[in-house]
Amino acid sequence: MTAELLRGHHGAHTHPGQPFYLPTGNEIEVFHAAARRGLPIMLKGPTGCGKTRLVEHMADRLGVPLYTVSCHEDMTAGDLLGRYVLTGGDTEWVDGPLTRAAREGGICYLDEVVEARQDATVAIHSLTDHRRQLSLERLGGQTIPAADGFTLVVSFNPGYQSVLKDLKMSTRQRMVAIELDYPPADLERAIVLREGGTEERLDDLLALAHALRRATDNGLAEVASTRTVVTASQLLAEGLPFDVAAHAAIALPLTDDPELARQLSTLIGSYS
Amino acid sequence: MTAELLRGHHGAHTHPGQPFYLPTGNEIEVFHAAARRGLPIMLKGPTGCGKTRLVEHMADRLGVPLYTVSCHEDMTAGDLLGRYVLTGGDTEWVDGPLTRAAREGGICYLDEVVEARQDATVAIHSLTDHRRQLSLERLGGQTIPAADGFTLVVSFNPGYQSVLKDLKMSTRQRMVAIELDYPPADLERAIVLREGGTEERLDDLLALAHALRRATDNGLAEVASTRTVVTASQLLAEGLPFDVAAHAAIALPLTDDPELARQLSTLIGSYS
Amino acid sequence: MTAELLRGHHGAHTHPGQPFYLPTGNEIEVFHAAARRGLPIMLKGPTGCGKTRLVEHMADRLGVPLYTVSCHEDMTAGDLLGRYVLTGGDTEWVDGPLTRAAREGGICYLDEVVEARQDATVAIHSLTDHRRQLSLERLGGQTIPAADGFTLVVSFNPGYQSVLKDLKMSTRQRMVAIELDYPPADLERAIVLREGGTEERLDDLLALAHALRRATDNGLAEVASTRTVVTASQLLAEGLPFDVAAHAAIALPLTDDPELARQLSTLIGSYS
Amino acid sequence: MTAELLRGHHGAHTHPGQPFYLPTGNEIEVFHAAARRGLPIMLKGPTGCGKTRLVEHMADRLGVPLYTVSCHEDMTAGDLLGRYVLTGGDTEWVDGPLTRAAREGGICYLDEVVEARQDATVAIHSLTDHRRQLSLERLGGQTIPAADGFTLVVSFNPGYQSVLKDLKMSTRQRMVAIELDYPPADLERAIVLREGGTEERLDDLLALAHALRRATDNGLAEVASTRTVVTASQLLAEGLPFDVAAHAAIALPLTDDPELARQLSTLIGSYS
Amino acid sequence: MTAELLRGHHGAHTHPGQPFYLPTGNEIEVFHAAARRGLPIMLKGPTGCGKTRLVEHMADRLGVPLYTVSCHEDMTAGDLLGRYVLTGGDTEWVDGPLTRAAREGGICYLDEVVEARQDATVAIHSLTDHRRQLSLERLGGQTIPAADGFTLVVSFNPGYQSVLKDLKMSTRQRMVAIELDYPPADLERAIVLREGGTEERLDDLLALAHALRRATDNGLAEVASTRTVVTASQLLAEGLPFDVAAHAAIALPLTDDPELARQLSTLIGSYS
Amino acid sequence: MTAELLRGHHGAHTHPGQPFYLPTGNEIEVFHAAARRGLPIMLKGPTGCGKTRLVEHMADRLGVPLYTVSCHEDMTAGDLLGRYVLTGGDTEWVDGPLTRAAREGGICYLDEVVEARQDATVAIHSLTDHRRQLSLERLGGQTIPAADGFTLVVSFNPGYQSVLKDLKMSTRQRMVAIELDYPPADLERAIVLREGGTEERLDDLLALAHALRRATDNGLAEVASTRTVVTASQLLAEGLPFDVAAHAAIALPLTDDPELARQLSTLIGSYS
Repeated sequence: MTAELLRGHHGAHTHPGQPFYLPTGNEIEVFHAAARRGLPIMLKGPTGCGKTRLVEHMADRLGVPLYTVSCHEDMTAGDLLGRYVLTGGDTEWVDGPLTRAAREGGICYLDEVVEARQDATVAIHSLTDHRRQLSLERLGGQTIPAADGFTLVVSFNPGYQSVLKDLKMSTRQRMVAIELDYPPADLERAIVLREGGTEERLDDLLALAHALRRATDNGLAEVASTRTVVTASQLLAEGLPFDVAAHAAIALPLTDDPELARQLSTLIGSYS
Repeated sequence: MTAELLRGHHGAHTHPGQPFYLPTGNEIEVFHAAARRGLPIMLKGPTGCGKTRLVEHMADRLGVPLYTVSCHEDMTAGDLLGRYVLTGGDTEWVDGPLTRAAREGGICYLDEVVEARQDATVAIHSLTDHRRQLSLERLGGQTIPAADGFTLVVSFNPGYQSVLKDLKMSTRQRMVAIELDYPPADLERAIVLREGGTEERLDDLLALAHALRRATDNGLAEVASTRTVVTASQLLAEGLPFDVAAHAAIALPLTDDPELARQLSTLIGSYS
Repeated sequence: MTAELLRGHHGAHTHPGQPFYLPTGNEIEVFHAAARRGLPIMLKGPTGCGKTRLVEHMADRLGVPLYTVSCHEDMTAGDLLGRYVLTGGDTEWVDGPLTRAAREGGICYLDEVVEARQDATVAIHSLTDHRRQLSLERLGGQTIPAADGFTLVVSFNPGYQSVLKDLKMSTRQRMVAIELDYPPADLERAIVLREGGTEERLDDLLALAHALRRATDNGLAEVASTRTVVTASQLLAEGLPFDVAAHAAIALPLTDDPELARQLSTLIGSYS
Repeated sequence: MTAELLRGHHGAHTHPGQPFYLPTGNEIEVFHAAARRGLPIMLKGPTGCGKTRLVEHMADRLGVPLYTVSCHEDMTAGDLLGRYVLTGGDTEWVDGPLTRAAREGGICYLDEVVEARQDATVAIHSLTDHRRQLSLERLGGQTIPAADGFTLVVSFNPGYQSVLKDLKMSTRQRMVAIELDYPPADLERAIVLREGGTEERLDDLLALAHALRRATDNGLAEVASTRTVVTASQLLAEGLPFDVAAHAAIALPLTDDPELARQLSTLIGSYS
Repeated sequence: MTAELLRGHHGAHTHPGQPFYLPTGNEIEVFHAAARRGLPIMLKGPTGCGKTRLVEHMADRLGVPLYTVSCHEDMTAGDLLGRYVLTGGDTEWVDGPLTRAAREGGICYLDEVVEARQDATVAIHSLTDHRRQLSLERLGGQTIPAADGFTLVVSFNPGYQSVLKDLKMSTRQRMVAIELDYPPADLERAIVLREGGTEERLDDLLALAHALRRATDNGLAEVASTRTVVTASQLLAEGLPFDVAAHAAIALPLTDDPELARQLSTLIGSYS
Repeated sequence: MTAELLRGHHGAHTHPGQPFYLPTGNEIEVFHAAARRGLPIMLKGPTGCGKTRLVEHMADRLGVPLYTVSCHEDMTAGDLLGRYVLTGGDTEWVDGPLTRAAREGGICYLDEVVEARQDATVAIHSLTDHRRQLSLERLGGQTIPAADGFTLVVSFNPGYQSVLKDLKMSTRQRMVAIELDYPPADLERAIVLREGGTEERLDDLLALAHALRRATDNGLAEVASTRTVVTASQLLAEGLPFDVAAHAAIALPLTDDPELARQLSTLIGSYS
């Protein structure tokens, strides 16, 4: 069944060379509809469930350049819009990734947008309503209309939200939201096989990940993502034993608590 | 009835090419009276109810340029007034949007003004009392009298106010206030039809929005704005099913809480 | 009686062209005495009671230039004293308003001084005791004696004071204090008539303002200032109905609370 | 008795042209002894009791230049030590007041030193122990030995101390401390007479000040300083009535509380 | 047995000139497997257990350059990525250690990564997933693919973690984790002998360290690391008595508490 | 006995011209041993007990240059390592004191190191383990090996430690620690006699200091240091009476509390 999955689920979205992405719902249709209308998109979902992959896949399908920005608490509007840079005694304006995407009709993807400072998130407002333009105050007030094809995508992990770190409602209500989660069992197997490159102990790894996700009251701050399962599989492919690979790629990244780590070891041992 | 509404409610304010705005009360008359006397205007109202639209409409009616500034917590007086910029080894003063509007007799619109830092809001004081002038300390103390037609407009969402983020009373009492809310049912239908471009499932969407607004104790931080209804209608026009469009444009932007999201899904389902 | 008031109350202080100010007590005499001795002056009083007007009036009477500074929490000593500015590849010192006033023997008026940062308020110390000089460290330690006629005036609203925002006792005890309040009824009528330019519904407006001021336990953070009454009168002069003008100029600026706003509407209605 | 006091108390310290200072204890002897040994001096005492006057007087007696710095929370080491300044395309080092005093053997007086940032107070350490030198890291690590006669003086008001704003013990134990207070009755009369220039109502003013100081549980944050009595006397000399002068110079600077202000008015009235 | 240990435990990993490291588990195998797959590595372990040594050893084995960065709370992305530096009137871009390692295929080792600011840790994201590239926004958006051999290694001490200072889950789940601890008795003896260079009182020192580690409820924030034992041995080699060396290298660094220090002295005395 | 003490205690460490230091334990031997092995040294001890003196003395004995840095909360890595300075239109790198000491094989002494910012203390890490090198990222990643003789010394006062201000364990465990305290009676007498220069009332001063140190529950934050006793003796040598000198040099620096000050006065009086 894996081959079939790889050839295309919900239609054939993957051609040779195209970034690999297996949809788990109607996310591709909603993304397409929003992009056609020039509406901004908000991706919600847990760590390592494939948000970045989806955006890469869509940029390729739509044939537009992709500008990815990992947001952080020291990021300012200048990091998105651009700034003057001193080069050889002269000053030169350098477009930021948001400005470049707006000019070229590309996708600007703000990963973990809630980490950014407010001036950075406010900078996107005029691009996300009927105006669809960018105003560069520092460039003499120049106004840049977004080119056709420009799409703004932001992502965040609802589990990380807090009163201090949240998108303002006036920002959220400008967006089309897509919710992602870890893929269902058959899809996840296909993904891990493709990325890890080995069937060795694959079903044991997946059973371990699913057991960890089922135990919601185990004291872990987060469950094992698809990404950690891929990593464990890669270590197996490098010849590490099952318990060493699962310990290094899944258990130790998930917790520093000695008692929890011991319970995870026992669980891993039961699959070894 | 929609056509009649589009042709003009409270008189014919919309001519071809003019930014579309349907008044819901006497906001246009009050705006006009304040602008004629050179009094600053404070717009109060919830997310996505049309504050920006009103200002764009009035700038067009009054035939003056509009400078819109999305305020944020890192915005300083220099962002409004102007600054020296290094270009080609030389320094040049570049007017900010407030200074440009004051010189040209335009409208300067400070969107979500309570987000701005205090030095930015204080910079407007001498423009908002009998002095009507701007003092540019950094430009050698030059004083700029506001040209005829200059009007300062600020907006904020009273639901976002807090002790930390509020306009000072001495700023508020300098202003003529206009309160806006979501438009009544017939007006909202006309707006969504015009913006969304399809009558498909339009009344179901509006009924859903009104149901959400009626349930004030549903745990949502905010109700569904007219803007979200327009977005849902646009997704319908792109061929998405009703429940997918309503989920992506209305439910998911409103909440990250799984339980609340499930209730919203049930509600959406009842209109599907 | 209004004409008589305008011609001069407590003596004829207003000649044609002079900024209009009607004294409500002995503030002009105390201001004069302090200015003659070179003592700094501290104006205390609520929002919109005429502090700025008094200073403008006195600058005109004394025949000295006036430098007004709206203080804010990002204001530094450099904003008052001056700074080096890069112009055309060269650096040039530009005096700040305090330095200019000290050199020319003018009035430097620091409006809402408690908002300023401490380095800004400390910068005035050597000007406010027997030394009467300014030391410009950044200008090579140059010392500037205050010219004859130099008077420092600061204002603040005691209702805004807090532990965090207060003048230090060592600053307060260097000053002659003047307390202002809203003018008595006959004076306020004369002021509003002159500024608003219409007698229409004038007494109703004033009765409304006085009713609002009497109700001290109405939940409002502040009472209606003379300034809001002037604004309402100006809107009336522009043809707005009484209730619309009073709502826009008095009720909506005073509160965002829906329940309080409704009570204010009822009160306004009783005068309509 | 006043004339005798002016001619010299504790010996004749005041000659024509010398800054006026009347000692209230052995402060001049201790200051002299510390200055002769090159020991730093810490002046403790309430607002307006004459700390600045004492330092000015001693600088004159010792025949050395005086550099006074009003400390504040934004003051950095660079403000004391010096910095590079861009002038005409070139950069030039400009000594700060501490460096100038160290080079010239003068007094550097840091007024309200606890307000300064820690890097500023730490900058004085090497000058205050057996090393008696200043290390200018930013000037290529240049070391400047303090010239003979250099004396560092700091002042603070113990009533303002808090956990956050205090001199570190390692700084305090490097210093010779002198405690000052308001002068006794006969000395204060001599001071006010000399500064105010009038005997009019002088004894009533002093009686009022003493009454205010006796009532230690009156709710006032601070008592009336000698400086406020001088100011009141100056207003009397300008022709203001007793109650107006005392209200403006003493009562209003001391409190913003309406109830306390009323009690002070009653007290003032009892001396009018 | 020491000689045998030095010649190689778990195989012969140490050749002449190679940085000395004695493995205590499968850390070298896991490190190798991760490095071959280009996966980032996270080292967890207490102070002074050999994390830095392991990385130096592996860089040598893999024959790649090593860039070590001690992280701290003022470190920004520019410290890792690079910045423009003004040299001789011209500006020149200087690669940071992360960029250098990515270009050259070396190891970039971020020691105590949880101390770094978020923008620094976020800067590594695109290097740690399938993209394996670095985007230098400040260098005109240039994208640098990581050369073969590039491996990112981060370390932290789980005992120092707190809510405020922790790696984000989305960062942790990108990594292969290796947990280190103090070496077992025979290995530690070999290490200390090699580093300290003397067998004198060596077993007493080790017995003392083990006694300290056993007493987990002794009030010490941390146990005696292998590093402190090496230091004590070095002081012994310099001729200091046992109790003086153990006090200076082990007891005094571990605590400032007088009571705890006395208990440690007694314990040290029992081995003297 | 004093002369003998001055000629050398624990051997003759003081030759003419050498900085005066009387050891109170084995601190000189431990310092020597650590310096010979290139190990960093941590001095712990109360205010004014002679930490700076010890370092000056050892630098002289070892014949190496000494760079002393008073640490403070605004100190950054650049203050220790060096920075680019603009001089005459050109930029020039200026080594900081740590870099200079590393290049020249001198002692770098960080006084009160816990006051420094973390990036400053982390900057020393690579100098304090087996690497013994300094990496100057801002100088193009240049690596500077520490010259022979380079010794890093840090000091702090354990009484000032707090959760916020403490050396990290990973820093502490890199160091050889030396604990200092006030010298025993005979040594302290010799020190004060040499520094103060007078035997007058010397034993009374010392008895007073010892009485203050014995009373550990007297409410004082700190006891009278040897430094304060020296200062009092210097004031006596200048002719001040015993109680005036002790009050100014010991009592007033120790407390601002009026009640405590009165108790200290009584105690001083009992020795007068």
